[in-house]
Amino acid sequence: MVEHAHPGYSAKKALVQKRLRRIEGQIRGLQRMVDDDRYCIDILEQVAAATRALQSVALVLLDEHMAHCLSDAVRNGGDEATAKLTEASAAIARLVRS
Amino acid sequence: MVEHAHPGYSAKKALVQKRLRRIEGQIRGLQRMVDDDRYCIDILEQVAAATRALQSVALVLLDEHMAHCLSDAVRNGGDEATAKLTEASAAIARLVRS
Amino acid sequence: MVEHAHPGYSAKKALVQKRLRRIEGQIRGLQRMVDDDRYCIDILEQVAAATRALQSVALVLLDEHMAHCLSDAVRNGGDEATAKLTEASAAIARLVRS
Amino acid sequence: MVEHAHPGYSAKKALVQKRLRRIEGQIRGLQRMVDDDRYCIDILEQVAAATRALQSVALVLLDEHMAHCLSDAVRNGGDEATAKLTEASAAIARLVRS
Repeated sequence: MVEHAHPGYSAKKALVQKRLRRIEGQIRGLQRMVDDDRYCIDILEQVAAATRALQSVALVLLDEHMAHCLSDAVRNGGDEATAKLTEASAAIARLVRS
Repeated sequence: MVEHAHPGYSAKKALVQKRLRRIEGQIRGLQRMVDDDRYCIDILEQVAAATRALQSVALVLLDEHMAHCLSDAVRNGGDEATAKLTEASAAIARLVRS
Repeated sequence: MVEHAHPGYSAKKALVQKRLRRIEGQIRGLQRMVDDDRYCIDILEQVAAATRALQSVALVLLDEHMAHCLSDAVRNGGDEATAKLTEASAAIARLVRS
Repeated sequence: MVEHAHPGYSAKKALVQKRLRRIEGQIRGLQRMVDDDRYCIDILEQVAAATRALQSVALVLLDEHMAHCLSDAVRNGGDEATAKLTEASAAIARLVRS
């Protein structure tokens, strides 16, 4: 995998960071709920909310990746286009199955 | 929803907290990756890993809930048993769909 | 795994069969769409609908299993209760991860 | 949504149809299991297998869509490229959430 000076999500960096900080807050909230012996089902509800929030971040990152990194590679064509399409497919498969 | 003096996950509290702290670390790791302009696909891989870790915590909590809270209610019978079964079903549906 | 004269879903058998026949119709509809060279995204939308329909059937079966087979085992107690709880947990984990 | 004379999955049409027929067989197998009063957990295992098979078909269709329809649109550029990227993102979101 290559490091990029400007990754696909550059324009959405603030949004992604804001959402990740909110998810970090949700995870710390879960630790407090467990500390306080809160009811299992209430905790499970918050775990499901944090899982959905993580999936939303993944979808933002994937959109930006497709609109920038993948689109650039496709326009340049050749082996790099093929490699980037294969890589994106694998990332999508991981998301669908996780 | 009721607060319980001893929730279903009491015997697994240390394990659940350890896993939640590790997930918190994964979320902070994601923030550092975004700060460092790391490649989208590498970040997506870590998001998928954190999502799976959250699902594992959910499954531990659900197992303990079924083995304790739900089983107690079923043994006591009556409306409380029915209510707890409905509640567990809704929690499982949220997990399956999240 | 044991065969039961009266499985947990006995009271919902007609509903489950109706839903499975509808899903079979969805899958045949997908084959016609592919035969007719329909647009990828339209087919994907129908695949997602069929997947959700299958998950709904799974949740009905699981609810009935918990309300009957699992509850019976829990009331009887002993090793059978423990075995049925472990088995239900594994089934839920498969659903959450599929 | 537009109909295409040659959809993205043209080269994989036989494979997709073969997998859909196999899934149709799995769904009919599920109906027989219910008819035969087979054990809930065994049926749930087959429902999970059919769900995973549907997700695999979705991933094949999505790969072909990205490698053909989406890549063509990206190379042509303009509004059509933007529209196809938005459409693909929505399809991926439906898969991740289903």
